[in-house]
Amino acid sequence: MSVDESSAKLKLFALNSNLPLAKKISERVGIPLGQSSVKRFSDGEIQINIEESIRGAEVFVIQSISEPVNDTILELLIMIDALRRASASEINVVIPYYGYSRQDRKARSREPITAKLIATLLEKDRATRILTIDLHAAQIQGFFDIPVDHLMAAPILAGYFKDRGITDNLVVVSPDHAGVSRARKMAELLGAPIAIIDNRHPEDEIVPSSIIGEVKGRIAIVIDDMIDTGTRFEVSAAALKSAGAAKVYGCATHAILSQNAPEKLEASAMEKVIVTDTIQIPAAKQFGKLVQLSVGPLLGDAIKLVHEQQPVDSLFDAKL
Amino acid sequence: MSVDESSAKLKLFALNSNLPLAKKISERVGIPLGQSSVKRFSDGEIQINIEESIRGAEVFVIQSISEPVNDTILELLIMIDALRRASASEINVVIPYYGYSRQDRKARSREPITAKLIATLLEKDRATRILTIDLHAAQIQGFFDIPVDHLMAAPILAGYFKDRGITDNLVVVSPDHAGVSRARKMAELLGAPIAIIDNRHPEDEIVPSSIIGEVKGRIAIVIDDMIDTGTRFEVSAAALKSAGAAKVYGCATHAILSQNAPEKLEASAMEKVIVTDTIQIPAAKQFGKLVQLSVGPLLGDAIKLVHEQQPVDSLFDAKL
Amino acid sequence: MSVDESSAKLKLFALNSNLPLAKKISERVGIPLGQSSVKRFSDGEIQINIEESIRGAEVFVIQSISEPVNDTILELLIMIDALRRASASEINVVIPYYGYSRQDRKARSREPITAKLIATLLEKDRATRILTIDLHAAQIQGFFDIPVDHLMAAPILAGYFKDRGITDNLVVVSPDHAGVSRARKMAELLGAPIAIIDNRHPEDEIVPSSIIGEVKGRIAIVIDDMIDTGTRFEVSAAALKSAGAAKVYGCATHAILSQNAPEKLEASAMEKVIVTDTIQIPAAKQFGKLVQLSVGPLLGDAIKLVHEQQPVDSLFDAKL
Amino acid sequence: MSVDESSAKLKLFALNSNLPLAKKISERVGIPLGQSSVKRFSDGEIQINIEESIRGAEVFVIQSISEPVNDTILELLIMIDALRRASASEINVVIPYYGYSRQDRKARSREPITAKLIATLLEKDRATRILTIDLHAAQIQGFFDIPVDHLMAAPILAGYFKDRGITDNLVVVSPDHAGVSRARKMAELLGAPIAIIDNRHPEDEIVPSSIIGEVKGRIAIVIDDMIDTGTRFEVSAAALKSAGAAKVYGCATHAILSQNAPEKLEASAMEKVIVTDTIQIPAAKQFGKLVQLSVGPLLGDAIKLVHEQQPVDSLFDAKL
Amino acid sequence: MSVDESSAKLKLFALNSNLPLAKKISERVGIPLGQSSVKRFSDGEIQINIEESIRGAEVFVIQSISEPVNDTILELLIMIDALRRASASEINVVIPYYGYSRQDRKARSREPITAKLIATLLEKDRATRILTIDLHAAQIQGFFDIPVDHLMAAPILAGYFKDRGITDNLVVVSPDHAGVSRARKMAELLGAPIAIIDNRHPEDEIVPSSIIGEVKGRIAIVIDDMIDTGTRFEVSAAALKSAGAAKVYGCATHAILSQNAPEKLEASAMEKVIVTDTIQIPAAKQFGKLVQLSVGPLLGDAIKLVHEQQPVDSLFDAKL
Amino acid sequence: MSVDESSAKLKLFALNSNLPLAKKISERVGIPLGQSSVKRFSDGEIQINIEESIRGAEVFVIQSISEPVNDTILELLIMIDALRRASASEINVVIPYYGYSRQDRKARSREPITAKLIATLLEKDRATRILTIDLHAAQIQGFFDIPVDHLMAAPILAGYFKDRGITDNLVVVSPDHAGVSRARKMAELLGAPIAIIDNRHPEDEIVPSSIIGEVKGRIAIVIDDMIDTGTRFEVSAAALKSAGAAKVYGCATHAILSQNAPEKLEASAMEKVIVTDTIQIPAAKQFGKLVQLSVGPLLGDAIKLVHEQQPVDSLFDAKL
Repeated sequence: MSVDESSAKLKLFALNSNLPLAKKISERVGIPLGQSSVKRFSDGEIQINIEESIRGAEVFVIQSISEPVNDTILELLIMIDALRRASASEINVVIPYYGYSRQDRKARSREPITAKLIATLLEKDRATRILTIDLHAAQIQGFFDIPVDHLMAAPILAGYFKDRGITDNLVVVSPDHAGVSRARKMAELLGAPIAIIDNRHPEDEIVPSSIIGEVKGRIAIVIDDMIDTGTRFEVSAAALKSAGAAKVYGCATHAILSQNAPEKLEASAMEKVIVTDTIQIPAAKQFGKLVQLSVGPLLGDAIKLVHEQQPVDSLFDAKL
Repeated sequence: MSVDESSAKLKLFALNSNLPLAKKISERVGIPLGQSSVKRFSDGEIQINIEESIRGAEVFVIQSISEPVNDTILELLIMIDALRRASASEINVVIPYYGYSRQDRKARSREPITAKLIATLLEKDRATRILTIDLHAAQIQGFFDIPVDHLMAAPILAGYFKDRGITDNLVVVSPDHAGVSRARKMAELLGAPIAIIDNRHPEDEIVPSSIIGEVKGRIAIVIDDMIDTGTRFEVSAAALKSAGAAKVYGCATHAILSQNAPEKLEASAMEKVIVTDTIQIPAAKQFGKLVQLSVGPLLGDAIKLVHEQQPVDSLFDAKL
Repeated sequence: MSVDESSAKLKLFALNSNLPLAKKISERVGIPLGQSSVKRFSDGEIQINIEESIRGAEVFVIQSISEPVNDTILELLIMIDALRRASASEINVVIPYYGYSRQDRKARSREPITAKLIATLLEKDRATRILTIDLHAAQIQGFFDIPVDHLMAAPILAGYFKDRGITDNLVVVSPDHAGVSRARKMAELLGAPIAIIDNRHPEDEIVPSSIIGEVKGRIAIVIDDMIDTGTRFEVSAAALKSAGAAKVYGCATHAILSQNAPEKLEASAMEKVIVTDTIQIPAAKQFGKLVQLSVGPLLGDAIKLVHEQQPVDSLFDAKL
Repeated sequence: MSVDESSAKLKLFALNSNLPLAKKISERVGIPLGQSSVKRFSDGEIQINIEESIRGAEVFVIQSISEPVNDTILELLIMIDALRRASASEINVVIPYYGYSRQDRKARSREPITAKLIATLLEKDRATRILTIDLHAAQIQGFFDIPVDHLMAAPILAGYFKDRGITDNLVVVSPDHAGVSRARKMAELLGAPIAIIDNRHPEDEIVPSSIIGEVKGRIAIVIDDMIDTGTRFEVSAAALKSAGAAKVYGCATHAILSQNAPEKLEASAMEKVIVTDTIQIPAAKQFGKLVQLSVGPLLGDAIKLVHEQQPVDSLFDAKL
Repeated sequence: MSVDESSAKLKLFALNSNLPLAKKISERVGIPLGQSSVKRFSDGEIQINIEESIRGAEVFVIQSISEPVNDTILELLIMIDALRRASASEINVVIPYYGYSRQDRKARSREPITAKLIATLLEKDRATRILTIDLHAAQIQGFFDIPVDHLMAAPILAGYFKDRGITDNLVVVSPDHAGVSRARKMAELLGAPIAIIDNRHPEDEIVPSSIIGEVKGRIAIVIDDMIDTGTRFEVSAAALKSAGAAKVYGCATHAILSQNAPEKLEASAMEKVIVTDTIQIPAAKQFGKLVQLSVGPLLGDAIKLVHEQQPVDSLFDAKL
Repeated sequence: MSVDESSAKLKLFALNSNLPLAKKISERVGIPLGQSSVKRFSDGEIQINIEESIRGAEVFVIQSISEPVNDTILELLIMIDALRRASASEINVVIPYYGYSRQDRKARSREPITAKLIATLLEKDRATRILTIDLHAAQIQGFFDIPVDHLMAAPILAGYFKDRGITDNLVVVSPDHAGVSRARKMAELLGAPIAIIDNRHPEDEIVPSSIIGEVKGRIAIVIDDMIDTGTRFEVSAAALKSAGAAKVYGCATHAILSQNAPEKLEASAMEKVIVTDTIQIPAAKQFGKLVQLSVGPLLGDAIKLVHEQQPVDSLFDAKL
């Protein structure tokens, strides 16, 4: 699949959060990344220069809202402002990892809903469309009134097990109550039953209360949308082993890996921790059990389909 | 607690969807419902007359978005238009049941997100604030940029069991994957463990695949946010009984009771079906096992607190 | 006139209010209606599925805001939400009959202006353009800031008389004070004088006070924009006959025909009642004196002209 | 009726279009006009200085959109900008005559709807409320989403005849088709029948084709919302006299009196021409038959009622 | 450079403020001005007729906001309203002189910021893009969120001196503190040093306090963005001559020439006063020392580049 | 001056950028800072908790947009989102230093205007009012449509010299072309003449080309709005000394002090560097020549005046 002739006007730009992924996307789309630079003034202010004309172009800007999250958000908003003022005809924003997505509701009085705030900022800055992967809650799509193409990494993660023939005697495990639907979907892809780790006080305690469902003697695949400090995966693996699981794998789309997550996971009872490259993982955070699969082809194909005004749902089937 | 003197300017209006609840709210607040009428022209168009001055008043309009949903939405939007043009200073919209809330994300390509559309329509019509109970997903709060006071009926429902001493040997059951967090919260209120009904194809099949968690010999309380056709509760009760549950109760905030739900539930293995009055249940839909608890006092207290600019979180504690 | 090659991207969709007219439009445009379905959940909520890709397409959605008006409005708003999220490039809304158009001003204190509310809802939902016929007041065009192509059915109605040679000794009659300009325009098309029925209390009484102008011995053509309960036409016909009119015909663009309008009109002193198909008339409401002319060719031509970026004013001349 | 104590915060400001009326309003309200100046730079730019603090005040700005219309519009928009930036809590705009109101619909292709444009400009500049009198079409209220208090001068004009005992043998005449409803209302106030002047080509010809209704031997009162060039009143009077009217009076709310209207009307068959002071009439345009009644008390009472959050509909009854 | 084939859809329209410049632009672009008329009703209201179809066209409207400024603003806003309702695909607004630009900040309490108000009015009326020359402050670009192409006349003005070999022994003089950056830029173009006239009370006094920098024996070129009453140039020339300047030239982009500016400048110590045609100078305001250079080719080239989606920065280099 | 009784509803909150200044403001206003916390999740996301009810309160949030600028912007936007959802009646944003203010125009093609972007983000997040000090360009006020109270630190800085009797033989020096108006204002306060450092290539070179104006033997006071790297002050001081200035002082409102500015300034020819505390200066950046004056009393008085709906212009006079 190569980009058609009308694509003279298609432009890809990458900001700073995840250049390796942007390059993979660029290769898949078959056009180079646009010339631009993002500098910092000595007082920390971001300065963006777009170094080629984008007047009338259909632009895709690639930026994960990953650490340092506030800088990546401002880079993105400033870039959109520059593109709009420079007369881009469409400003499509590719956000492989949508940070702040866990702040998607008021859990207590007087809390912000920051995931909505980010959506509002992007819309008011006049982004045309959002492409993203595995939002923390599917309802975040509704935080936008512009079109959102919401892709899923589950087929890529499931592919890891299928490719290695790890398909029998499985159980897919949700590490908390909120993720059961996600586990159910992965279980469908792998033809497996599910189990749930029932953690009564998810924020205060780290020892799961109990496991609901059968795991004894099975290969357990713990699935979550993101790995942050790694504690949830660490204790889940320990609990599953105690409960008699034969082996435990961890899967997640977004590898935040904050604090000492790499050490914790390497030392855990997990066999392997399979993630994607929606967030760039620096060398210092790589660890032996880590397996990183790329969403670059998925996003590259999506960009081509959007540009050619084809439906993107073919992507979901193609990957299964 | 009675409304203070500054409340001369507080006005309550009820539209047509749930007058009995509106009257309970009015009694709790201690002021009568405002004079207005909602008529239909012979061609079905709604005609609203507000029959007293509301210039400068802090108005609360009470309307559940329940069947006939489209009529109740239009009634509400037209009422807000009339109130705004008549110079109400604040237009607080009390929506005990927020219909269309299940359409809160794009599950498939080219679907609308109707729950967001309704939020947008209310905001563009310039509602000042929303008061509602048990949204289908907490993220729907973020569909609004205006303040949303989101109340919970769980303490009222849990109160049913506590009042009757049904507190031992319980298990709280989520009838599907998406509701596990809701079950976990109810379980906290009742000091019980949880179980989950693992329904692989929730839309196509009605027989649950399996039950995850221990239910044998226990009193099972199935909890959901709403009861629509009643099939989910019917099959959940049957499955729990087969699995050895001693008794099965059903609980839900919103009693839609569409189609032959009353017959189905009356004939089911449920002991009792406990709901609230967020949706008005006509006499023809009443059935023997149905227990209806009122959210009128909860909403009345919330309106008084909002009017007196006090925090509403006291309501949550007071009810536990 | 056939649609040019660039029309690969033109898509027509019909919602539920008037499928026969939508089919006539589709035939005139020369492309089939798009695949979509509008279903109801058992609790009355509307569910829309668009079953073909419309990414980048110039879409025309056809929906009269006719009975059940609130359902047709919600269907339309939900469809626009779905089309926008699915990346339609233009969402043109064809509204043959714009319901609620009589609520276009505050006639009394604290009334809504529902016709403006509907316009606001459509604009905020991001419709691109409106095509409509014979708005109750031309000023409703100004309720929108987006383009409105406002077509007139008068030439079609006048054509009925011209085709049958009913062109001499005519008088065009306005059945109330507000419609005199409409009568004047029809009179121009037919080369006739006008008369007015002076109804002092148009809402409370049904007997016209008097007729202003000469009708004795003439063929009277009563013209209005819509027929609702039929009472106005019934009493106008009787009054004109009492005043010596030779024959009386009734003409209106929009045939609401609520309550027992068909019986009333069939039994009235009218010779014929000529209307268009902007509103679908079910078989049960057909009656012997009813003549229904189609606006399908007019709307089909308008859609083609809009799509080809040609002016639509040619339509007005062509029809005279 | 005097302004209550809370009115410390009420401020009235007058712009340049109609200072005499503003002073009458100020007297009725019982507070002086605020200190401000509107100057012109030598190149014609308007410079506004507000010379007293209005922070937190409920401001009423009085400005007719009368000749020079574009200057009065800009004065008003600039004043609102200054008031908003200076932290007025409410900016109520009193527009006794709403210019451009005849451009309220697209009569031909590619016309603007300037009356809506003006409404949009006022709303986007964040006016809080509009008070106005006798809009050319009542639908213009719907061009706004903010509250519009729409007053009527008809009782004041009718009062002229009642005060002088001119109440028998009357006929109220609409000078064109569009104004029949206005004539009908005036006829109600005076207990008279109506007649209509049937002018087939209202823009191109000045001789009315015919008169519909009985005028012979009656005192005819021609009523319109505004007098522009005076031609319509001149020819109407002539036609009515030819048709045997005993006397002819002219009435209109808004006295534009452009070109040689004063001479024309003085020389016409009109007895008297009764207007209000919504538009300031310079000395040079005064003429012998002109009678000018003030809307100052009406507007002053309306401002007091709005400020005291009382309904304004009492004004309508009080005047009848 | 000629307009490419896709330009069938490019349309130029001129309003009334500066037809001679519009014609020069039209010649440069190579397409005729569109058919439209701007008339005045007898009461001063503007009536615009667009006499050719612009459906789907990329329209450029040319209008300087020059005297009578309020009329030119309203003409422009009404034209945009008409173009938008007539379905123009893009409405580019070419404003050679942006009036009210000196009211770009609150210099005192309770002042408006009229330059921002104008920007807001244009954006809310849905202009697509602004093309303008030498804004009074570059920050005015930021008053818009739509793209602004901001061109500079400095190369054209500098060209006057280069073409005549006036390039040695120059000093570029800023006539006040605020214009030093502008002088610095002109000095760069001419390779000259700068001086500043230090006027302590620029608004109240007309005699400059002192000159900062060396001017003795040099050819002084006073540069400003606009000439209004001419006093600043008159006193600057006198002061520079007193300080020993050999000759004094005056340069400005915008020639407002209000009051008796022509007489004043003709009688002043200036050799020549070089301006552009962003503002039309009527014959009565022409004077012997006046040299008027055209920005027509600059604007024509900019329009062609915008239409062809080429960057406009080539214009800056090409002119140096 | 103490806060009046109605101030029960006034609430002050400080975010993280400048707590010492917030405390000074709080002391001046006479009410404590509200209870809130701003934490970071381990992945860098900001979490805000407001720990007391602010329903109906008039809130002032204090936050300088200083380093780390992107974090301080997000903290502020998230706080506003939380306050709005928690039903604050007014959200006044106190921004002592408005970062990104130098990006206030497009200096080159395809640049963003980030200062406007920040204004847009604050407005769309629904801030009610901005209080700020010494914007880089006064036009930035116009980037907002909400009220901006723009205070000046010049009287505080001038006070330093007056208090020490440094009032004779002064010259106020602008370190570049853009700041001449600022120097002129300071010169007025001190009764001194001005001079300008003519730096032809302000960004590329650090050696000023020349000094325009008399400085020999005088005490030179270099004034700028901010000190960033300190280079401009360092080279200005050196140049002024070379040109014979007796002493050189530096003054600026905002002390960014990036890179090695402290060392540079301490080693420079400056006597003293006088700044305010709009930006918090950490201990490590303090240096011997630094004098820091507080704007706390100025901001505290402004907040009291705003709260009491008094004009703030009294502040300007009081300080002179």
